[in-house]
Amino acid sequence: MNRLLIKNALIIPLDDQEREQDWFKGDLVIEGSVIKELGENLEEKYPGFTIIDGENSLVTPGFVNCHTHAAMTMLRGYADDLPLMKWLQEMIWPREAHLDAEDIYWGSQLAVLEMIKSGTTAFADMYFYMEQTAQVVLDSGIRASLSRGLIGNGEMAQYALEENTELVKRWHGQGEGRITCMFGPHAPYTCPPDFLEKVMSLADEWGVGLHIHLAETLDEIEEIKGKYGKRPVELMDSLGLFQGRHVLAAHCVHLNENEIEILAKNKVGIAHNPESNMKLVSGVAPVPQLLKKGALVGLGTDGASSNNNLDMLEEMRTCALLHKVFSGEPTVLPANQVLRMATKDGAKVLGLEYVGSLEAGQKADLLIFDLQKPHWTPLYNPIANLVYAAQSSDIKTVIIDGKIVMKDREVLTMDEERIMFEAEKRGQELIRK
Amino acid sequence: MNRLLIKNALIIPLDDQEREQDWFKGDLVIEGSVIKELGENLEEKYPGFTIIDGENSLVTPGFVNCHTHAAMTMLRGYADDLPLMKWLQEMIWPREAHLDAEDIYWGSQLAVLEMIKSGTTAFADMYFYMEQTAQVVLDSGIRASLSRGLIGNGEMAQYALEENTELVKRWHGQGEGRITCMFGPHAPYTCPPDFLEKVMSLADEWGVGLHIHLAETLDEIEEIKGKYGKRPVELMDSLGLFQGRHVLAAHCVHLNENEIEILAKNKVGIAHNPESNMKLVSGVAPVPQLLKKGALVGLGTDGASSNNNLDMLEEMRTCALLHKVFSGEPTVLPANQVLRMATKDGAKVLGLEYVGSLEAGQKADLLIFDLQKPHWTPLYNPIANLVYAAQSSDIKTVIIDGKIVMKDREVLTMDEERIMFEAEKRGQELIRK
Repeated sequence: MNRLLIKNALIIPLDDQEREQDWFKGDLVIEGSVIKELGENLEEKYPGFTIIDGENSLVTPGFVNCHTHAAMTMLRGYADDLPLMKWLQEMIWPREAHLDAEDIYWGSQLAVLEMIKSGTTAFADMYFYMEQTAQVVLDSGIRASLSRGLIGNGEMAQYALEENTELVKRWHGQGEGRITCMFGPHAPYTCPPDFLEKVMSLADEWGVGLHIHLAETLDEIEEIKGKYGKRPVELMDSLGLFQGRHVLAAHCVHLNENEIEILAKNKVGIAHNPESNMKLVSGVAPVPQLLKKGALVGLGTDGASSNNNLDMLEEMRTCALLHKVFSGEPTVLPANQVLRMATKDGAKVLGLEYVGSLEAGQKADLLIFDLQKPHWTPLYNPIANLVYAAQSSDIKTVIIDGKIVMKDREVLTMDEERIMFEAEKRGQELIRK
Repeated sequence: MNRLLIKNALIIPLDDQEREQDWFKGDLVIEGSVIKELGENLEEKYPGFTIIDGENSLVTPGFVNCHTHAAMTMLRGYADDLPLMKWLQEMIWPREAHLDAEDIYWGSQLAVLEMIKSGTTAFADMYFYMEQTAQVVLDSGIRASLSRGLIGNGEMAQYALEENTELVKRWHGQGEGRITCMFGPHAPYTCPPDFLEKVMSLADEWGVGLHIHLAETLDEIEEIKGKYGKRPVELMDSLGLFQGRHVLAAHCVHLNENEIEILAKNKVGIAHNPESNMKLVSGVAPVPQLLKKGALVGLGTDGASSNNNLDMLEEMRTCALLHKVFSGEPTVLPANQVLRMATKDGAKVLGLEYVGSLEAGQKADLLIFDLQKPHWTPLYNPIANLVYAAQSSDIKTVIIDGKIVMKDREVLTMDEERIMFEAEKRGQELIRK
C-alpha cells in the first residue's frame, strides 16, 4: 500500500474551507489511493511513510481535461490555419478513415504521455477503437471517462452502439475504478432524435452518463433549427436528454438565455474548450454568463489537431485572458475560478466528485510543482503565478490514485522513447496513405 | 573567436529564399558573432570548429520581444483580475514609487534570466534607472534596445530627459553593439506636443529612435481627441513624429483606417502585445488589417505585471488564436506569419535588421529546440508545432551574438539561484513598504 507524506509544501487544497488565503504551508498524507490528512507537522503521526520533500514546491489537485479525442495526437500539426470545412472534409476526415486500431493505440499512448507530463490526471475522451484507449489508461495509471463516438444517421449507427455498449460492459469500473465509461452520441446534427432515444435508454440501462458535442458552431444552430424548429440545447431538453442522467456537453458556444438556464438548472457538465474554439473560429462560449447562472463548467483541450497540444495550464491562461477581453471586464474569470474549472469543477463535469480537490477522503490525484523558476519569482500569490505565469514543465511529480506516476519529469508507467518512435513512424505512414 | 558548427539540424531560416518548404535539414556555421554559412555537410569545410550535434533538434532565429518593462517582474502576480484604473492607481503606481536602483537591477536580472530561458535574444525596454538594466544586458550577453520612460508633463520631465540623454551617451553601441538606445516618451497623454518636439530633436541629434506607447486604450483616444481634436496616431503624425526617424510604437490597439495607413506608410515599428491587451482589457489590435496594408508588426509581452510572464512562444500562440476568433477567419495570422512577427519583423521593429533570420552575414542570435518531446510528435510541420504546440522549456541552447549563452537550459552568464533569491527577498520587502 502507498504511504506517502509530502512535507512542508505550499498547498492549494480547493476545499472551500474558510481561511485567510486559498493556500497554506503544510503536509499532505496519502494512504493507499486516498488522501488521509492535511495539516502541519504530520511526520511523527505517520511513521514509516515515504517522505517527499515539499520545500520550494506547490501541491495542487491534478488537472481534469473535460473533452479530448486522445488519438488525434496522430494528426497534430497536419492541418492548420485552414477554413473549418476544408480542414474537416479535405484534411481530417480522409486521414481518420485510415486510422486502424494500432494507430489509435499509439495515438492514445502519445496523448496520455503528454497529458501526464503536463499535469492532467483525468480526462474525458470520445473517439473510436476505444478499447485501445482503455488499455492505455489501464496501463499508464491515469484516470479517464471513455465513450465511443456514435454517428446515428449512417449504416454504422447500430454497430457503433454495440461497440459502446461493449466498452461499458468490459471497461466501466476497471483499474480499481480509474476507468469509467459513458455513451458518446456525437452531436445533435449527427444523431437524430430516435437514435438519441436509444442511446438514452442504453445509458440508463447501464447506469452511465452521456458525452456529446453541443452547440459548437453557428452552422449547427442553423441546421438544427431548420430541421427541428428548435436550437440544439432546446432540442436536447425537449427530448429529455438532461433529465435524471449525467450529461457531459462539449463546447456550448452558441447559447441563448433560455439555453443557459436549461444547462444551469439541469447541472449539465459543460466542457469549455477555448483554444480549439478560437483556432477553428467556432466562437467564444458565454462562460461568464453560464457561471453567473450557476452552471457547471470545466475546461478541455479538444483533440490535438485543433489545439495543438493537450496542455491544461495553457488552456487555463487562454480561458482567463479570452473572456476578459471578450467581455470587456478584467475581473471576470479570475485565476482562482479558472483553477477550479480545471480541477474541482472539471471533476464534477466527469461525474468524479471524489477527485479535483485536496481533502481527507478524496482520491489522491495531485501535482507537485517546482517553484524554483524565474517565472515563479517573486511568489506573492501562487494561484496567480500558476494560472498566468507557469508552464507545465514546472510540474515535477504527478500522483494519480495514490501512485507516483511521474517523478522528476519521468513517467514511470510508460516507455516514452518507444511511444514517440511508434507515433512518429505510424504518423508519417498515415499522411502518405 | 567563437567557431561553432551546428550539424544536421532541422533549420527554419526565414531567409525568404524560394524552397519547397520553409525549413531544411542541414548545418549552420558561426564564426565570431556572425553566421558564416548554411548548407549541407559543412564539417569538412570548417575543420577545428566546435560541433553541436543537431540530431532531433530544430534551429530557429532567436525571439525578439518588442515591448517590455523588464524590472516589472518585481510586481509579477502582485495585482491581477482588477479593473484597469484600480490596478494602476491603487496597486502598481504606489509600488513603483518605492522601487530603487537596486530593485531595478535585480528585477532586470530576473527578467533577462527568464527571457533567455524562454528564447528571447533581443528586447526593447522602457522604464527608469535604465543604467541598471543596461548593466544587466551587458553582463548577461543578451541584446536590447533601451529607453528611459519620459513623463513630459510633471516636474521630473527635464530631469528624465537628461537621464535618457545620458543613457544614450554612455550606453548606445556598448557590448560590441548589443546595446542600442532610444528615447522613451511614455505616451501622447503624458507627453504634451512641446515636450515631444524636444524629444524628437534630441533623438535626431543623437541619431537614435523613439519608443512610445500609442493608442493603447479607448480612454487615451477620448482624452487626446478632447485635448487636441485629433486621435493619437493622427496627432503624432501632425507633429512629424514619424518623419525621418525610427519609431517603435507599442500597442496600437485603437486605430481608424487613416491611422492604419499612417503607420503602414511610415513603416512605424508596431509592438503588438496580445496577452497584456487581453488581461487589461485594452482591446484587440487590428493586426490583420495592419498586415494587409503592409505595416511592420512585431510581438511583445509588455511588463510581467500584466502578462504575467515574458514568454514569447506563449505570446505567439495567443496572437494566432486571438486574431482568428476575433476576425472570424481561421486563415489569418498563420503560424509562419506569427513566427516572422516574433523574429525577423520584430528585429526590424527594434531597428536591428542584422538579426531575426538565419542567413550568412547576419548576427548569430538563434535557438536550438529539443524535438524529442511528446508534444512535438508527430513532426509534420515544424512551424505549426513550434507556434501551436511547443513550450519554451523545449529550448535547450541559446546563442546570442555568436556566443552560447544557455546550454542544456543552464544560463552560463548569470547566477540563477542568486537572482531568484534577491528578487524574492526584495519583492517581499517592496510589497510591505
